[in-house]
This record gives sequence, structure tokens and C-alpha cells, in this order.
Amino acid sequence: MLGTMLHGPRDVRCEEVPEPEILKPTDAIIRLAAACICGSDLWPYRGLNDTSEPAAMGHEYCGIVEEVGSAVKNVRPGQFVVGSFCLSDNTCPHCRFGFQSSCEQREFMTGAQAPLARVPLADGTLVATTEMPAEDLIPSLLATSDVLGTGWYAADAARVQPGSTVVVVGDGAVGLMGVLAARQMGAARIIAMSRHKTRQDLALDYGATDIVSERGEEGIAGIKQLTQGIGADSVLECVGTKESMAQALACARPGSMIGYVGVPHGVVFDGQQLFFAQKGMLGGPAPVRRFLPHLMDLVLKRKINPGKVFDLELPLADVAEGYKAMDERRSIKVLLRV
Amino acid sequence: MLGTMLHGPRDVRCEEVPEPEILKPTDAIIRLAAACICGSDLWPYRGLNDTSEPAAMGHEYCGIVEEVGSAVKNVRPGQFVVGSFCLSDNTCPHCRFGFQSSCEQREFMTGAQAPLARVPLADGTLVATTEMPAEDLIPSLLATSDVLGTGWYAADAARVQPGSTVVVVGDGAVGLMGVLAARQMGAARIIAMSRHKTRQDLALDYGATDIVSERGEEGIAGIKQLTQGIGADSVLECVGTKESMAQALACARPGSMIGYVGVPHGVVFDGQQLFFAQKGMLGGPAPVRRFLPHLMDLVLKRKINPGKVFDLELPLADVAEGYKAMDERRSIKVLLRV
Repeated sequence: MLGTMLHGPRDVRCEEVPEPEILKPTDAIIRLAAACICGSDLWPYRGLNDTSEPAAMGHEYCGIVEEVGSAVKNVRPGQFVVGSFCLSDNTCPHCRFGFQSSCEQREFMTGAQAPLARVPLADGTLVATTEMPAEDLIPSLLATSDVLGTGWYAADAARVQPGSTVVVVGDGAVGLMGVLAARQMGAARIIAMSRHKTRQDLALDYGATDIVSERGEEGIAGIKQLTQGIGADSVLECVGTKESMAQALACARPGSMIGYVGVPHGVVFDGQQLFFAQKGMLGGPAPVRRFLPHLMDLVLKRKINPGKVFDLELPLADVAEGYKAMDERRSIKVLLRV
Repeated sequence: MLGTMLHGPRDVRCEEVPEPEILKPTDAIIRLAAACICGSDLWPYRGLNDTSEPAAMGHEYCGIVEEVGSAVKNVRPGQFVVGSFCLSDNTCPHCRFGFQSSCEQREFMTGAQAPLARVPLADGTLVATTEMPAEDLIPSLLATSDVLGTGWYAADAARVQPGSTVVVVGDGAVGLMGVLAARQMGAARIIAMSRHKTRQDLALDYGATDIVSERGEEGIAGIKQLTQGIGADSVLECVGTKESMAQALACARPGSMIGYVGVPHGVVFDGQQLFFAQKGMLGGPAPVRRFLPHLMDLVLKRKINPGKVFDLELPLADVAEGYKAMDERRSIKVLLRV
């Protein structure tokens, strides 16, 4: 079959790869309804992570179960399923604590930018729908697998509550999903930091009440002005750079929480500074599995439409163009037809 | 009057100082019922903070209001009061958010190792009792001013809940108060990390269920063993060194919160490491004012006895010996009779 391999910085190829097989009795093979490119795929694409070996790309997925290993009990061939990019058994103490992304058996999904993918720990990872979802819901269901689940976790970690004032740093797909999540959690004010008209529009559509288009000192001043000098109750950091984290910290009020979901690259915190600033922090790879049943339900009932975040659709064969479009920020998020 | 001045590293003196006066209409002067030495006083005492100017020491206090400025409305001469080491107006947005230690007008108390002290922002800072407390409650009421309030905040920031498994790093007075706080909040298991018999005994007395006397790798292994390899739901970091913070991080389970109240010295966090470890953090100078009415009530009703943390009592004239005893860890906390 055709699959997506990263060979080195900016060298991503759609090429012939072996079909996935059941390797462990806890595996499942699924036929993807669609695939997509994640903002975090851009880190290795840009050469910021090690790419010494060719790597099978893609960790967001939904589709129909094709085959299951002998130990799989919770899903069966023919069912439509969604799973998290973090594979988890959903039974270990960390899973039961709601942090499936730190599962004792945690693995990260790979190889999902392809028509078929192997999902380890299928019983713990996959959530099946009761019936086959409508075709137009596929993009939104695919979004729950990572980008929505991650934005949702950012809002959860930042303890967004009814009436909260929230700042979302980052207008990538995760940031936009953070806006959607904050809205669903009842935030009264959602300030999206975004410089791009199309992203601003989508943020407003997802429930942002205000837009701050400046960055750095000016951006901070903008947030301070909108919050009467107080800062935000909750800040969602959805980028992962030094600059974005500094922005998040500066926009957060004392006693607030910063939920950070952009994988930090070059970010260092000074303990004493963080102490006197009195800003709370919780981040990490999102425990999407915790939220998945609820998010899938919201999608299936058409209460949310996270799929709108896909603003470019390409056939899998054009995956390289998809990476390029996201790298150059011409596209927010690319859906791949497999 | 006699007061306590720090002239340089390990040079603390009880000497003649001017009596405090009302400087602003929002000030009060109080006659201290007793004074004490704080673990954080040891940072400048040990030369780890700048001490280029002689500094008036002491920031924990309770006693009788002697005089108030013209703008003070909430307390009057003759009342017994306790205040936080953080002075706050208790009306600004940060105060109303429960983070009085980040009050827009925040000042830090000084000069309270003396018979009289000036308390700025008296209306926001001081909490009066309805009647004169019994003499034997003075040490416990004094403890609410900082050491108990700080231990309490550590437990609050670490989100201790009924049934929680809690690790307390640090067996100084704040750590011991953290044990007491975790107990009051209903923690099921409280593991105190302590190497000293007298401190271990007091920790057990305050509600610790387990003691781990090792530090470093062995200490971490001890915690892991006691928690079936999981780690703690909540960790109270009550020291502030690189080693103690590393210990706290290693003992915390993914998704847990670390409440850190020891002023960090030389502590740096790597963003990516913290991200993948998925440990939450909230610290800072404790907003004692938020907890003060409740803590004073617990003391006045004799439900808690934080005053037991004072294991050495000296006259103010011997304050230098008090610092020495705490510096050498011969004493947990020194009460000064003024």
C-alpha cells in the first residue's frame, strides 16, 4: 500500500510500504476513513527532532476495524472506531487517574497517514460508535483523535470554568480547538491571539470573544488592556516555543493555570521567577482517551464541528504538498483522503 | 525598644531600634504577643540573599492592636489580631481571586522580631479574634501567620483531597504544617520525608502515616515502593533547593500537582521534561490571608495544635542563638518572648 515516510528534514514521501499486520494479540488493524497532518509532525519535518531513520508518519485516525488480535475483546471487525494518538491500556493506575497519556504501557501511534494502520493496545485505546457515522462527520471524528482532544486537555489543565477569562496562545489547529473547548466549558471571555485573518475568523466562529493580533510586549499589553490589567484566569499554550511560553506566562494572572500542550522546544523555567509570579502549570501529551467518549458524542450529536479546522483536503499521494502548506502556514490543517 | 537586625551573613543582633510609627493612614501598630524565626529567615542569614544593608527581621506576628492610622476601619486598638507575612489590601482583583500574596499593593512584612511592629494595609491584612485568646494558644495563633498558612497553601496548591496519597518533601516547620494540613483535608496517606527522629515523631503526631528517611534515589525508591510504583497524587515541596525539587518531581505521579512553597534557590525546570512527565505545579508565597479565618478558628476551637512546632523558646535578647539553633537544625522553629 501507499504510506507516508519522513526521510529527513522537509523530505516527506508517499511511497510503497508494507501493509500493517497484527504483531501482538492486543493489536487491531483499522482501515482509515481519512488521515491528516498534525502540527507536531512539523517538528521532525523541520528537522527539530531527530530523523536519522526514515519514520512512518501519522498518529491521528478513525475508521473501520479490519482485523483484531486474539486478545482484543472491546472492538470487533466492522465497527467504526476512534483512538487517541497515545496508545494506552486504560486499566493501569495512570489511566484510571485520567492520564492515559502516561499509561504504564504507553506507546505513540505511528503510520496513520496511510489507508491501513496498526493500533496497539486496541482494547484500551479504541472507542467504537454504536452505528456507522454519516460521511460528513468523518473530519470532525478524526479531529477528536488528537487536535480536539489536545485543545480540550489544554482547557481542562488550565481549569477553564463557567465564567472564566481565557487566553489562547497559538492559532494553529490545536489553539482553535482550545477556543472551542473553552467555549464548551462555559468561559465568559475567550481571547484568541492570532495574526491571520482566516484563523481569526475561525476562532471567532468557534467562540472567541476577542482577538489580539499583536505578539510579544504589544500582545501582552493587549491582553492586559482587555483584562483591566489583571490577566487571564486560564491560559492555553498551544505552540511550544520559548516566545509562546513567555507570552502565556505574561498573560496569566497570579493563581491562574497554564495548560500547555505544544511540545516545548527550548523552553526553560526559572523556579524562583515562576514562584513569585505564582502561575500554575500543567501540560503534557493530552490524555485524549479520557475525553474521547464525550467528544465523539458532541460530534455525533452535531453540537460541535471541529472538522472545520481542516481547510485543505488532498489525496494521500500529495502528502508532501500538505506538509509544505502547513509548514508555510498556508493551511491550518490538512485532511488526507486515503 | 529592642529589635532584631541582620547585619550580614550569620550576623544577627538584638539591638536598640526606633519604635515603629504610623507612616500611612492605612497602617496599624501592634504589640506582639510573641515573635518567631522563620525557615526563610535562614536564606539571608546564610548569605544566600543580598544583605548589603542591615535589615529588620521578622515577618510572623500576632498580638494586640496598639494604634491605627486614620483610614483603618476593620480593626481597633485593644483587639487581638493575626496577619499574614504578605500584606495585602484584600480588595484588589488578585486578593478577590484568593491570591492575596500577589495583591496589587503587596508588601512583605518586616520588623516583627520585636515587641512592636508596624503593619501596613492593616484593614486588608489583619484578622481580629472576637475575644482575647487564652495564653496557651498564642504559639498556635502565631503559627497561622506564616508557617501553618504556608503549609496549608502547599496542600491546597497540590490539590490534596479526601483519600489522596500525599508526599511531603521537607521536615522543616512548613513541611510539618503541610502534614497537618493534608490530614485536615482528608488525605488517606501522608508520607513524610524526614531523617530526624524528633521531626519524624512530630510528623506522625500531625498525621503522617508513613516516614521515608532516605533521600535522593533511595528516597524516591522508598516512595515508589509505598505507592506500588505509582507515585503520589499530591506532593508538597517545602524546601526550595534543586535536590528537594527533583525529589518532589520524582515522587509525583503523572497528572498530580506539586505545591511548592520553599522559595526556589537554583531551581530550573526543563520545559520538555516537565511536559512529558506531566506533572502540575503551583507555588509561590502563600496567600495566607485566604486561609487565616479558617485556620484561626481551628486553633481557637483547639482542633489543631500547630504551636507544637515551636521546640525552643528564647527571650528576644537571645535571638542570635535562635537563628544558630535553627541553622544547625537543633531546633525546628524558635519562639521568641518579646
